[in-house]
Amino acid sequence: MARADIGLIGLGTMGSALALNIAEKGFTVAVWNRTTEKTHAFVEEAGDLAANVIATDTLEDLAAALKGPRAIILMVPAGQPVDDQIEALDPYLGPDDMVIDAGNANFRDTMRRMEVLERPFLGIGVSGGEDGARHGPAIMGGGDPDLWARVAPILTAIAASFEGTPCANLMGENGAGHFVKAVHNGIEYADMQLIAEVYGLMRDGLAMEAPQVGEVFEGWNNGRLSSFLIETSAKVALAHDTATDGPLLDVIVDAAGQKGTGRWTAIEAQHLGTPIPVIEAAVAARNMSAQRGLRADLAATFGGVDRIDIPIDILEAALTCGKILCYAQGFDMLRAAARAFDWSLKPEVIARNWRAGCIIRSAMLDDMAEAFEAAPDTTLMAAPYFSDILSETIGALRQTVIAATSAGLPVPAMAAALAYFDTMRQARGTANMIQGQRDYFGLHGFVRMDTGDKDQHGPWADD
Amino acid sequence: MARADIGLIGLGTMGSALALNIAEKGFTVAVWNRTTEKTHAFVEEAGDLAANVIATDTLEDLAAALKGPRAIILMVPAGQPVDDQIEALDPYLGPDDMVIDAGNANFRDTMRRMEVLERPFLGIGVSGGEDGARHGPAIMGGGDPDLWARVAPILTAIAASFEGTPCANLMGENGAGHFVKAVHNGIEYADMQLIAEVYGLMRDGLAMEAPQVGEVFEGWNNGRLSSFLIETSAKVALAHDTATDGPLLDVIVDAAGQKGTGRWTAIEAQHLGTPIPVIEAAVAARNMSAQRGLRADLAATFGGVDRIDIPIDILEAALTCGKILCYAQGFDMLRAAARAFDWSLKPEVIARNWRAGCIIRSAMLDDMAEAFEAAPDTTLMAAPYFSDILSETIGALRQTVIAATSAGLPVPAMAAALAYFDTMRQARGTANMIQGQRDYFGLHGFVRMDTGDKDQHGPWADD
Repeated sequence: MARADIGLIGLGTMGSALALNIAEKGFTVAVWNRTTEKTHAFVEEAGDLAANVIATDTLEDLAAALKGPRAIILMVPAGQPVDDQIEALDPYLGPDDMVIDAGNANFRDTMRRMEVLERPFLGIGVSGGEDGARHGPAIMGGGDPDLWARVAPILTAIAASFEGTPCANLMGENGAGHFVKAVHNGIEYADMQLIAEVYGLMRDGLAMEAPQVGEVFEGWNNGRLSSFLIETSAKVALAHDTATDGPLLDVIVDAAGQKGTGRWTAIEAQHLGTPIPVIEAAVAARNMSAQRGLRADLAATFGGVDRIDIPIDILEAALTCGKILCYAQGFDMLRAAARAFDWSLKPEVIARNWRAGCIIRSAMLDDMAEAFEAAPDTTLMAAPYFSDILSETIGALRQTVIAATSAGLPVPAMAAALAYFDTMRQARGTANMIQGQRDYFGLHGFVRMDTGDKDQHGPWADD
Repeated sequence: MARADIGLIGLGTMGSALALNIAEKGFTVAVWNRTTEKTHAFVEEAGDLAANVIATDTLEDLAAALKGPRAIILMVPAGQPVDDQIEALDPYLGPDDMVIDAGNANFRDTMRRMEVLERPFLGIGVSGGEDGARHGPAIMGGGDPDLWARVAPILTAIAASFEGTPCANLMGENGAGHFVKAVHNGIEYADMQLIAEVYGLMRDGLAMEAPQVGEVFEGWNNGRLSSFLIETSAKVALAHDTATDGPLLDVIVDAAGQKGTGRWTAIEAQHLGTPIPVIEAAVAARNMSAQRGLRADLAATFGGVDRIDIPIDILEAALTCGKILCYAQGFDMLRAAARAFDWSLKPEVIARNWRAGCIIRSAMLDDMAEAFEAAPDTTLMAAPYFSDILSETIGALRQTVIAATSAGLPVPAMAAALAYFDTMRQARGTANMIQGQRDYFGLHGFVRMDTGDKDQHGPWADD
């Protein structure tokens, strides 16, 4: 009876896909779902793979079906359901049996669970959507290396791989896996927004039709921007709408939804005090997109945008530049988290892990992995390979932002990327004015440039 | 014995100033501090005002000194100390006695306390620093109107006033006072950053010395930018450093500190899904300012900024425009909070309350109060008075951002303000691309422009 290699709880879209993936790789997976009918329906639809699936009706059956020490993946909604499920499982598990939360947990919950649970526990981030879960996701693990080692054979087998190297790695301690997954999603928001802005410049600034835009993206996908999101954008721009016999892109309402993961990254960056302005601009842009009525009103009041005159290859270089700056911020945030939570995050391992399976997979991530291997403690901006590309492309980003700004076309994420670049390469900034103001009205004190003396005050302190 | 009108606990900088202010206005205030010596030292230093101060050594004495129903202001550090203090007080209070938290509480704590405490409780935000607390702060109340009415005579007497109208008002229910105070601080960050950017353009772009910059700010303080922060900036830029016999501004290190309130505003805006990119840019700029070593390194790699050619009056108009857009975002955030927390916030009351006493006090807030009186439910961008100014000044902001961007001088907050404007006046945005991407990789669905049908999918859904 106890012949399953691993258990899986929660046969929703992602859970089902992951279970089939496991079965397909030759492992036997015991599955359980709150609704028993769903469990049986899943097995019926599993076809040939059903041979590697054991349907269980109770948690007791599930436990009985598993080889020891057991490992059970949870794919249930984040939050309280995870705690409830762990509690419900507990009576049927031995002290060495492991629970693996593969849902979209907040990393703080994962840290709390590892703290309070008296059993082996891993928190893993799974990226790539349903298709990724079914055929090869990127898996970002968090927790104890010995526990990771116990399930690594299965997790690396089901993960995507980049040139033969599996995209399943232990990111770091306790909540690190779920944290890395969240930053991945923040970068995803920014990447998508940068592409949307370039699309807008082609549409409104260069008066290109959607299929022309799609062809441009197709071309870029053969160059250094090659990535799943550029490929996706090409497909979207090229798609035909049968109802209108026109481009599908033109019939899609311009209000972006969100499931909150970009927002969550922005919140954590605030806690860490690490600047991620491109990601923030992307989240803000989604929020603004939702205000369609107001935008229409304000367009009537303030309208009037112009065409622009800019070569397509300048746009490509600008997008490249903006993307590098966005990733630089994301990796800086990961480094800040490593310091704050005492995680041994390795940026090169994270970059390698993102090369395939996940939404932001791209050729450039391979170069980032190499850059971080040489210099793990530096911002991407300072890594030689990328500082060379930045030097080469920053002019294009500047030209693009100026052209868009002149024409009144919004490029909030690109503008934020450029402002970040210009701020970070300014040796003498302007925060001395802010420190002067703070001392004037709040006696907060400042540091002197010449002597390094701290807690200095202006003459107003004597009043 | 029971002759004090109000009690005050916590004789730190702000508490002492507030107690003296109360005494000066003719009310008798009973004070208590954890360290009894501090209480007595306070009375000794109070001079003539000591006649209106009753020093108490125990909480029992404090309660005994107060007329009933009692009202006691807490000026202790935010968080657990407030809860501890309330618990310690409890045995000496009757059921109608009121506690007023005047510290920098997180509004969620204030809401929790009102929920669980079985006694009258108010949460009030106090702005204006030590000087404001001593001579007239802006007071932002939150809680029950009847409770507010009980202490309004004292609070309005000690508050700043604008043309005879006190800047002490009930903002709304439960946590509203502390929330409004937090947004005030977020706007303060943005206002300061916008000024710092203009200073930077004058310093680096126009090669002006600090005293010249100070004179410009002095001039602006007589125009529509007239405000405490512009006045402050003039004083800071004009200040002389005796040690170097040069401008003080030039010897202040360009790394801005923060006590976290701007960050907190950014976090709450994320929870509310309301875009405040100018405030976010200001917080990010402070975080970037701290990375001085890296900025110096990157300047060596990427250096090379240019002078700009821009008239001073264009910079004044640009700052005016950026400021309006920043305030528009702040007030939109307050409206979003009113919806989320079911508060009856009135933007015109908030604007009136900020006209004096607080750090962001300005002539323009009086105009904002008028604009919101006419149209409380609209963004400032759409209020006729301000949409006229925006139309008049947006060209200057655009010219300034373009000049700075061309020269490589960072203006992250101004650029964010302009990108916000251009995004919000774009009737057809670019989020259709984002919705197309999300549907392609996650089948999230989109809404059709032509039919309004929801949950539509592209042809990839049939794969």
